[in-house]
Amino acid sequence: MNLKKRARDSRKTIVNPQRLWSDIQELGKIGFVEGRGVTRVALSDADIVAKEWLTRRMKEAGLEVRMDAATNVIGTLKSPGQREARIVVIGSHLDTVPGGGIFDGALGVLAGLECTRALQENSIVLPWDLEIINFSDEEGFHNAGTVGSRAMVGKLGQNEIFLAKEKGLPTFAEDMKRLGKNPDRIDEAIRDPEIFEAFLELHIEQGGVLESRGMDIGAVTGIAGIYRYTIEILGKADHAGTTPMSLRDDALVKAASIFTLLPQWVRTRNPEMVGTIGQIGVEPGAINVVPGKCVFNVELRSMEPEDTAAVYRLLTEWVGRQTGSSIKTIYEKESAALSESIIETIVRAAGVEDLSAIRMVSGAGHDCQVFAPRVPTGLIFVPSREGKSHCPEEWTDREHASNGCQVLLRTTLKLADEKISRK
Amino acid sequence: MNLKKRARDSRKTIVNPQRLWSDIQELGKIGFVEGRGVTRVALSDADIVAKEWLTRRMKEAGLEVRMDAATNVIGTLKSPGQREARIVVIGSHLDTVPGGGIFDGALGVLAGLECTRALQENSIVLPWDLEIINFSDEEGFHNAGTVGSRAMVGKLGQNEIFLAKEKGLPTFAEDMKRLGKNPDRIDEAIRDPEIFEAFLELHIEQGGVLESRGMDIGAVTGIAGIYRYTIEILGKADHAGTTPMSLRDDALVKAASIFTLLPQWVRTRNPEMVGTIGQIGVEPGAINVVPGKCVFNVELRSMEPEDTAAVYRLLTEWVGRQTGSSIKTIYEKESAALSESIIETIVRAAGVEDLSAIRMVSGAGHDCQVFAPRVPTGLIFVPSREGKSHCPEEWTDREHASNGCQVLLRTTLKLADEKISRK
Repeated sequence: MNLKKRARDSRKTIVNPQRLWSDIQELGKIGFVEGRGVTRVALSDADIVAKEWLTRRMKEAGLEVRMDAATNVIGTLKSPGQREARIVVIGSHLDTVPGGGIFDGALGVLAGLECTRALQENSIVLPWDLEIINFSDEEGFHNAGTVGSRAMVGKLGQNEIFLAKEKGLPTFAEDMKRLGKNPDRIDEAIRDPEIFEAFLELHIEQGGVLESRGMDIGAVTGIAGIYRYTIEILGKADHAGTTPMSLRDDALVKAASIFTLLPQWVRTRNPEMVGTIGQIGVEPGAINVVPGKCVFNVELRSMEPEDTAAVYRLLTEWVGRQTGSSIKTIYEKESAALSESIIETIVRAAGVEDLSAIRMVSGAGHDCQVFAPRVPTGLIFVPSREGKSHCPEEWTDREHASNGCQVLLRTTLKLADEKISRK
Repeated sequence: MNLKKRARDSRKTIVNPQRLWSDIQELGKIGFVEGRGVTRVALSDADIVAKEWLTRRMKEAGLEVRMDAATNVIGTLKSPGQREARIVVIGSHLDTVPGGGIFDGALGVLAGLECTRALQENSIVLPWDLEIINFSDEEGFHNAGTVGSRAMVGKLGQNEIFLAKEKGLPTFAEDMKRLGKNPDRIDEAIRDPEIFEAFLELHIEQGGVLESRGMDIGAVTGIAGIYRYTIEILGKADHAGTTPMSLRDDALVKAASIFTLLPQWVRTRNPEMVGTIGQIGVEPGAINVVPGKCVFNVELRSMEPEDTAAVYRLLTEWVGRQTGSSIKTIYEKESAALSESIIETIVRAAGVEDLSAIRMVSGAGHDCQVFAPRVPTGLIFVPSREGKSHCPEEWTDREHASNGCQVLLRTTLKLADEKISRK
């Protein structure tokens, strides 16, 4: 068997758009409620049904399936006769936010599954095992997100799975037991990153860049770091009828300039950076009382830590000019650069399929970012209609879904090709 | 008996500061909870105890006391031998907001009571009956406020007393029955405004104008009209990580300019006008979602309807420039001008007592504004420490309280003097 020849002959190898679409639709029914979208939060009844459904589908496709100690479902397309036992992973997640859509996460897992079918139908034998992984709790229903992927690389905090997101909600540790998994043994899910040849993920963009530019494929260069701050501006609460304008210290009026300054700072700094004030409140919050306090949350996302640092500096300077006010960091996640060589491979794979592609930053987090610092990693985006996600209106056209799947397959084949060439 | 001489000889007539202060302190215990101020909402147990306490105090002071059909408590200092049966009223209220102070409303009623004592001690006989009235539910616990005063002039809406402010709260009609009053007979409280010679009220300023200018007395020229609007600015809710700044339609950013424009418009228009945005929210209100909607309430207060109209016009023009946005009027109360002749009398009365006085607009509503369009009406302000009211920290110094009471007495005597002079 000439592996090299097989891989190079694979131009005709194509995925089956109808089979992928039908999988997406079928899975999309699990946890679906009319008008409310899909609620398949991690380790809920619906999520467990989805894991079982996927396991059946994987077995039907000839994969070896297991659930690891962190409740990740792993389907392996074995490549016989490999001495090094190296692995390429195609991974994403089947859990959703409450009231989410049918594509976020699901597309990546189902596209991976479809790739294994196409490979087998075309008798392609890869130079490594191919694992399709459904990572548990990417969306962070229990506490923080990307639980399953972080468990696999040993980057889960000591107590994280024992903490609930809100009072009254279950912990990941509690819910693991529903699948017969022991929280104290979650470390058994850890694997040596050295065994992974590459990590690939296909995901909907969740933004409007591809659609607005009429592009088919996004070759993601990195995942933006996320920094969140709470800013509190103090003024003086006074009777809105009896306090003349000249005697006021109105916290909302003091805060106002930042609402327009922040977007200016961010745009000037880097067109790929974003900055948002998505939450704001005033106290005491009565129609006839001058605001004595204005509290709002700022979120910055950027690939470049220097960009975030620069805007943070402007923010603190601005806060410093408001007497008695403060800024507090409430969340920090560093950016993750993806493999330059795989980005290039994805762009070329899109070219082979006659699809347009751009390089772009991902503003949202994904399972692949956990692997990026340890394993050569690639992330492929397809367009989201009107940029919507995490809502019932989330949509990606069938053609875009199969385009993404085809580029995922082509990228896999190209990696195999390169591997064989290097031999 | 020479009434004219009596009134003119009254320069030596003074109130007893200690007696007034002791009344304020004693009443202030009814409904008081340490650290939470006074909660004596209308027709509550505490308010009923306060009405009973006041009735006893009035009787001890030699007044004839009755409760009218609207639960107002009326104490009368009869002036024997009056043929015309005309009346001067000194009125305010004993009810408080939840967690209020001991001065708001109470000072005016207790100062009226103290005036009747001083008059009798100095054997002053007035040319009309003097009524001290504790009006029910000025603060609007049940629904709208100034219930008792509006009931007296026949300006209570048909169903107003049958409506509760919030679900679960009692109606005024229900609570009236606790005092043996029949809601269906509340109209029996109506009196012909023609019988009133004048209406006087003493009240704490509830703002910081007198204190900041070091003035003793405010001679109120009118009560500002109140106009409230809800403004809704529409944008587009998007993922804060995946939506580039250039593709955003952020409702908070669109709204921001009005937070600084409104104060500018108001100040430029009239230094006595005020404008406030005391409530604001964004939707969906998540830290990682671009605001798709920003809703806030605007309140304007001014003596001059043209000022309100002018700023409202600027607001609507501004809203018109924000696509898909809207402005809605949610509350309107016209301004009430007070009697020019009584304002002048108050200023002169302060002068006689060697107190400094300024003319000023009241930004807050009061019982007297109900009488202002029908009866010559005056309102006297004394300083509020740091302008605070409707909170446990509400405070007016003993000296300021007795100054106000003395000016109230002097104004009453001057009105009597003028009446006698006209005879």
